[in-house]
Amino acid sequence: MSEPRHNVLGIGNAIVDVISRTTDEFLSSHDIPKGGMNLIDEARAEELYADTGPSIEISGGSAANTIVGVASFGGTGAYVGKVKDDQLGKVFSHDIRASGVTFETALAGEGPSTARSLILVTPDGERTMNTYLGACVQLGPQDLDADLIASAQVTYLEGYLWDPEAAKEAFREAARIARAAGRKVSLTLSDPFCVERHREGFLELVKGNVDILFANELEIMSLYQVDDFDEAAVKVKADCELAALTRSEKGCVVVSGDHTAHVPAVPVKQVVDTTGAGDMFAAGFLYGVTHGRDLETCGKLGVLAASEIISHVGARPETPFADLARQHGLD
Amino acid sequence: MSEPRHNVLGIGNAIVDVISRTTDEFLSSHDIPKGGMNLIDEARAEELYADTGPSIEISGGSAANTIVGVASFGGTGAYVGKVKDDQLGKVFSHDIRASGVTFETALAGEGPSTARSLILVTPDGERTMNTYLGACVQLGPQDLDADLIASAQVTYLEGYLWDPEAAKEAFREAARIARAAGRKVSLTLSDPFCVERHREGFLELVKGNVDILFANELEIMSLYQVDDFDEAAVKVKADCELAALTRSEKGCVVVSGDHTAHVPAVPVKQVVDTTGAGDMFAAGFLYGVTHGRDLETCGKLGVLAASEIISHVGARPETPFADLARQHGLD
Repeated sequence: MSEPRHNVLGIGNAIVDVISRTTDEFLSSHDIPKGGMNLIDEARAEELYADTGPSIEISGGSAANTIVGVASFGGTGAYVGKVKDDQLGKVFSHDIRASGVTFETALAGEGPSTARSLILVTPDGERTMNTYLGACVQLGPQDLDADLIASAQVTYLEGYLWDPEAAKEAFREAARIARAAGRKVSLTLSDPFCVERHREGFLELVKGNVDILFANELEIMSLYQVDDFDEAAVKVKADCELAALTRSEKGCVVVSGDHTAHVPAVPVKQVVDTTGAGDMFAAGFLYGVTHGRDLETCGKLGVLAASEIISHVGARPETPFADLARQHGLD
Repeated sequence: MSEPRHNVLGIGNAIVDVISRTTDEFLSSHDIPKGGMNLIDEARAEELYADTGPSIEISGGSAANTIVGVASFGGTGAYVGKVKDDQLGKVFSHDIRASGVTFETALAGEGPSTARSLILVTPDGERTMNTYLGACVQLGPQDLDADLIASAQVTYLEGYLWDPEAAKEAFREAARIARAAGRKVSLTLSDPFCVERHREGFLELVKGNVDILFANELEIMSLYQVDDFDEAAVKVKADCELAALTRSEKGCVVVSGDHTAHVPAVPVKQVVDTTGAGDMFAAGFLYGVTHGRDLETCGKLGVLAASEIISHVGARPETPFADLARQHGLD
């Protein structure tokens, strides 16, 4: 196997976040289930946007955030995702490249505009996402560069990719290429509703095609349809080589064969916006994995990155993670 | 005179801010004079953007920020400015309307794209603006609604409007309409370099066509070409009915006839980003003026709003100014 060119290659829905503060009343009066990711069409996106307060735009996208996080730790990352050749597509492309990530996916010249997620942040810091997939539906196997995938230590795939049909095909093909090249495949379950939509497919992946699984408490319990976190943890241990399970303020549990590590959360002064917490946990964990750290340290890097991202608005780091890791003796 | 429909109507260059953290070295290696507003063409904007780190996009524009600030205090505001019918133009339009401001200027269907300002924030919190005027060059007298202007208590004009030729005409026409209707005309000198470019015209305005003048220390000294702030303050008192002069951490000085009020700055924990400080000072001051407050209270409202805006990234308020005013006993 040749030397890897990147630590982690991520594939995901390429999205610009439109972030706005709101109230719980706004969510309920607009029939928006709180806390998850709701898929919406363009008409609904326009309608919701018109009702939403002033916002700020920041590049987002779950796997994209993670790869930017890996780069922020000092790792090397590449990203595959589809935006249109419009203003927000240029913003997305600029930001991910300016973060040091290789991004070469061709921009869509026609079709729907660059994807946007209206992210409504309630006073408790919880984010509720309303995503219009736009140009993401154009991502397909034709966008994959087999050499790029084969040369990355880990190919990281977001469960959200199963929502647009062609992207699901790209997901499967990328996993196949990575495994054929002897590389690791990593999956995040993304969202409890996403698990509901694609449970059978995700279970099939977890039982044999995924080396490193990321899930939060709700997602892993939904995957196995159990009410108890510990029960889900036992099940995933039997299915998957390595799973990192996040539990918000309870930190994370890493399970791998006979090994289980509990890592406490890093306390934050104030939870401003939880957007990107899971993405950044994955960034820290994968940076650790690709840099030979033990599983407990990988977990610590994950919770550290998550603690930074929930302290401010947006899912891209404001403080370089490499500096944070140094301050916490994790470099 | 009929009842006013708005407290303040602002006219300015409608801009989306593209904000990025940078270093002093970046500014010097790119020949960017620190602290001011540099006008750049599209090619230079693309070139600088390509070299700039990840950014966030927030609606801006000097007078637009001020009117949003007036609305945040609970006042009524209207805005006139030109964006294109593109993604950033829609973002700008959404944000200003979502802030409660009347904004009815027709979007440009063709021509240059919506204006962007690459705002580079150095570690000291100072902002350096690099503005591509884009669609702003299409603003002209045809965009003015005489009834709207005549029905606003104050028409607030930014000095930056003198940069695009047709906007300067719109500026003069708006001032004429406001005065003919017996309303007040207010001007901000905007930027020391802007004063350099348009000193003669600004002096002519100040000596007879402006009722309320805003300037910072450097701008007012540049206007009168004097090295001493107190000397400039004496000169402006002779020329203008009311002038509010800001001095950063030294607060502000309000001069009007025989009256001079000194208002200290509101201390902030950390200056994160000075973008919008002058704009928000004007917002607080004009809210006060249009709500019958004495000049000292107007100055206090101004420095209070400025203190909020420099505590976070971006030039639009995060905490409603009405709440802040209440907390400080200024409601």
